[in-house]
Amino acid sequence: MISTTRTSGSPTPRANARGERARLRLLDAALSAFATQGFHGTSTRDIAEAAAMSPAAVYVHYRTKEELLFQLSLHGHREIRRVVETALGRPEPPAARLRGLVADYTAWHARSHVQARVLQYEFAALLPEHAEQIAAIRGAIEAMFQGAITDGVDAGIFRIDDVKMTSLALLSLGIDVARWFRPGGARSPDEIGNYYGEIALRVCGHPGDL
Amino acid sequence: MISTTRTSGSPTPRANARGERARLRLLDAALSAFATQGFHGTSTRDIAEAAAMSPAAVYVHYRTKEELLFQLSLHGHREIRRVVETALGRPEPPAARLRGLVADYTAWHARSHVQARVLQYEFAALLPEHAEQIAAIRGAIEAMFQGAITDGVDAGIFRIDDVKMTSLALLSLGIDVARWFRPGGARSPDEIGNYYGEIALRVCGHPGDL
Repeated sequence: MISTTRTSGSPTPRANARGERARLRLLDAALSAFATQGFHGTSTRDIAEAAAMSPAAVYVHYRTKEELLFQLSLHGHREIRRVVETALGRPEPPAARLRGLVADYTAWHARSHVQARVLQYEFAALLPEHAEQIAAIRGAIEAMFQGAITDGVDAGIFRIDDVKMTSLALLSLGIDVARWFRPGGARSPDEIGNYYGEIALRVCGHPGDL
Repeated sequence: MISTTRTSGSPTPRANARGERARLRLLDAALSAFATQGFHGTSTRDIAEAAAMSPAAVYVHYRTKEELLFQLSLHGHREIRRVVETALGRPEPPAARLRGLVADYTAWHARSHVQARVLQYEFAALLPEHAEQIAAIRGAIEAMFQGAITDGVDAGIFRIDDVKMTSLALLSLGIDVARWFRPGGARSPDEIGNYYGEIALRVCGHPGDL
């Protein structure tokens, strides 16, 4: 379920609440459709039908199909950034912080695999000005990963040749879980996250288990 | 560029060769279209236009759009399997073999990133009987990764809690490169592959650099 902040200027609180509910229904419908058929394989009519609305009613809330993708993408990337910030906000030494960061990032991609696939694999469908906004959030997330790795290098407990490549690899590990994860499999999102947290320490050349 | 084996029963060698060229043109056109618009966002008409053929001419060679995806997928997965078999066929000790395996697998996904994205992200669009055939090849590739890890464990040089999860992680590292790799970036496919080969050894708890 998606939650958004109000952006409309509808005349009354009741109309606002109704508009808000319609927007949420549309975002949920768009997410399911994009996840199963891809952005380019989904029509505004598909989304309208899934939300039990008319195509014309969709345009009252979102001017284009791309606007729906952008709002989903913005919301999801902000959620991931929050997960990363929360993990890094814990008062822990560098190894425990990196382990927790990778564990939480990976578990999020398993738990939110439908949302994550749309966010990570439909990026190219965004308009340039929207792609730029999303790329800025991605850049911030990548910088936080790099910072967490650099902290360990500075503390003398990580051995890394290339901080950027290492950070890309740790991000990749988490993101690709969204591709293969299926609910009800042998391992829960948290179990996968914890294992990948341990892997992250090894990738950073951490001398042993915490 | 795609190459396939002959499957038609055309009357003369010349007709065979012409049919083969048409099939290759269609596979190339389908690959580009699926990569940019996704399978569900691509129509048979799009593919016909890109191959400078009529939609009716497409159906002479491929009954459905899904048949094109399946042939691309089959060809690509066989190519990946060959890369893996070649890497594992080298007469090297377990650490060097795993490093080479991950390096080659990763470099392939960088070099063939357009093809790889279609293979890895459009799997869900295959018909069940085709998905089963592709899943069998994926299973064989995964088993070869697990075997390479197990060889190192048996030799006492890898320390692993969970061979299956470790193998999934190493496959993920390579596959996700296809999502972010852009030609002309800071690192070549081989450089990325070599770095990831080193990462793979660390993930397996290998005590040091080779």
